[in-house]
Amino acid sequence: MSERFFVATPPAAGRAILSGDEARHLTRVLRARVGDAVTLFDGRGQAWQAQVAAIGRHDVELETGAAVADPPTACRPLSLAVALPKGERQKWLVEKLTELGATRLIPLVTTRGVAEATPAARERLMRGVIEACKQCGRNRLMEIPEPESLADLVVRKDPAVAGIIAEPGGGSLEAAIPRAASEILALVGPEGGFTPDELATARAAGFVPVSLGPHVLRIETAAIAVAARLAESVGQ
Amino acid sequence: MSERFFVATPPAAGRAILSGDEARHLTRVLRARVGDAVTLFDGRGQAWQAQVAAIGRHDVELETGAAVADPPTACRPLSLAVALPKGERQKWLVEKLTELGATRLIPLVTTRGVAEATPAARERLMRGVIEACKQCGRNRLMEIPEPESLADLVVRKDPAVAGIIAEPGGGSLEAAIPRAASEILALVGPEGGFTPDELATARAAGFVPVSLGPHVLRIETAAIAVAARLAESVGQ
Repeated sequence: MSERFFVATPPAAGRAILSGDEARHLTRVLRARVGDAVTLFDGRGQAWQAQVAAIGRHDVELETGAAVADPPTACRPLSLAVALPKGERQKWLVEKLTELGATRLIPLVTTRGVAEATPAARERLMRGVIEACKQCGRNRLMEIPEPESLADLVVRKDPAVAGIIAEPGGGSLEAAIPRAASEILALVGPEGGFTPDELATARAAGFVPVSLGPHVLRIETAAIAVAARLAESVGQ
Repeated sequence: MSERFFVATPPAAGRAILSGDEARHLTRVLRARVGDAVTLFDGRGQAWQAQVAAIGRHDVELETGAAVADPPTACRPLSLAVALPKGERQKWLVEKLTELGATRLIPLVTTRGVAEATPAARERLMRGVIEACKQCGRNRLMEIPEPESLADLVVRKDPAVAGIIAEPGGGSLEAAIPRAASEILALVGPEGGFTPDELATARAAGFVPVSLGPHVLRIETAAIAVAARLAESVGQ
């Protein structure tokens, strides 16, 4: 696999431009030269083989081949709504969920949550998504939409979406997901847990409590475990 | 759950002594006082309710109640033999495998591996196991035995142990584990992958290649995914 770069603007007429972090990575870190081969991906499931055509001060121009689209997948999208942990744990969560193929990480606003997903924080996390996609060969970015409160999120769940909520004492994860579900939406609470009110709201909206084993998992461990266990039945 | 502390020497005659890191955590970080209630665990599956009896300069004496043993489990031990990643990723691997209930993390010596599990490194990793056990409520430590080469490890596998090897293009993880297997031993290679020789050696010894999804997983992600996916069918 040649080195991979993210292009927000897909190539046109056989040309693509890398700028910002991506251009710096290519020219300063990898010290690319004209003629070097790389792979470009647009974060929406398309990739291109490309060759460095010209290296400018801030931009790199590339000559691109034909687009290769990801094969269509029969899998179901997996969204994880997570009360974000702090600092490094947040970064890890994003990296691992991206590698494991989660479709969407929704910052979940809960009563006991500690980290706020400000626009700046989300931008930083999206940078982490891009880095992980470059590294793991994923061509479709994991989405990180605006934060949403548990109450708002659960009331607008489509009945065809399988809703689960990570909660000690819950049932089996796999058994909680109907075969016919079109999508999966998993809720993972903050370190102090969901409040009884939040749990009641989620259950009333059809979310099924599932247990992830005998130990008290950290937020990011619980979310990563859900993604890993559903990896083969979901797609981005 | 009250704060949990690890005692290498189990309580005797209703008394236990905390020293070193554990005494410092209790007195300096948590500023415990005589009479405070804590939980002790011995890393071998037993726990005790305890009360601080006396705080010395380096040690803390505790008065302990009756031992509570972990309920016996019908689950199978899970060993992960992993070509350790470097630095922080190593620390994370240990924390997550401990939370997810892996029995044993064997530092795997491979041709392309980068990190050496020196005795000092293993001691640091065991400290990480203890920290994770304190936090997640696990009473049995995850073991980190001496490093072993792939060749040595695979030849002495018991036929009753299900051997799997994480490898792109492999089959389904769950399908690779016979119902009758007494234990599971999973091999996870270094970033550059196993060499063709290593793969052949493992396959000849009965290890089944399994795929963990479409993306190139980092070492720690692959190991954590295996532990998460087998969590409900294994025990420490």
